[in-house]
Amino acid sequence: MIKLIWQKGLQFTAYDGNDHKIIVDTDVKSGGYEQGFTPMNLLLVALAGCMSMDIVAIVSKKGGKITSFTAELEGIRAQTHPKKHDKIIVKFVCEGDYKREDLLRAFELSRDKYCSVSATLRSAPEIEYIL
Amino acid sequence: MIKLIWQKGLQFTAYDGNDHKIIVDTDVKSGGYEQGFTPMNLLLVALAGCMSMDIVAIVSKKGGKITSFTAELEGIRAQTHPKKHDKIIVKFVCEGDYKREDLLRAFELSRDKYCSVSATLRSAPEIEYIL
Repeated sequence: MIKLIWQKGLQFTAYDGNDHKIIVDTDVKSGGYEQGFTPMNLLLVALAGCMSMDIVAIVSKKGGKITSFTAELEGIRAQTHPKKHDKIIVKFVCEGDYKREDLLRAFELSRDKYCSVSATLRSAPEIEYIL
Repeated sequence: MIKLIWQKGLQFTAYDGNDHKIIVDTDVKSGGYEQGFTPMNLLLVALAGCMSMDIVAIVSKKGGKITSFTAELEGIRAQTHPKKHDKIIVKFVCEGDYKREDLLRAFELSRDKYCSVSATLRSAPEIEYIL
């Protein structure tokens, strides 16, 4: 179970039940302390992390030797509330000794079959609230 | 810009361009080191963080004095690939001196008008990939 606990201003600490914690925060203008990732940036990290794991795993299983792998993301947000990500741009850069076709296939498998986060983003999950 | 850099196994470090970093990881069975939040858990943190910020801000603006605020989340995942969150359950617990109706109104405003993450989840954002 994931738990968030309010700390101060609009800053929260999140726990995953496995001894990990992260600070979730926002800018000072909005009432935060700028001491951690914002929720909208965490959404981008979730997407990139999920796909990057798939791609690195699949390329490696096909015998590729990856020496560096980065993902860069930009979220283009709507101007008006709720200022959602209208579009997300993800750039993957993979260096090492591997076949380009394996990288492309790994990317496609992640996007279309394996990546849990992008599938969740596509599917508008049901959300139940209790309060 | 958000950047993820591969570290080892399926572990990545994410940077937000504002001097914050978090470890993104997965379980050992899957090839990770279990040293950070998983992508699917980060998605839950993003949702809860965004709504919690809205609710705390709105209740406070209405004169409420919050002494503690927590959000607990559970993602119910599909059994088969891509094992997306079929349903997300979010429970908010707010303690302090405030009007119950203000809390409910703050929650509704977040869910329906202000929360950027839940709006993004509802809208299946366009994603452009570069590799």
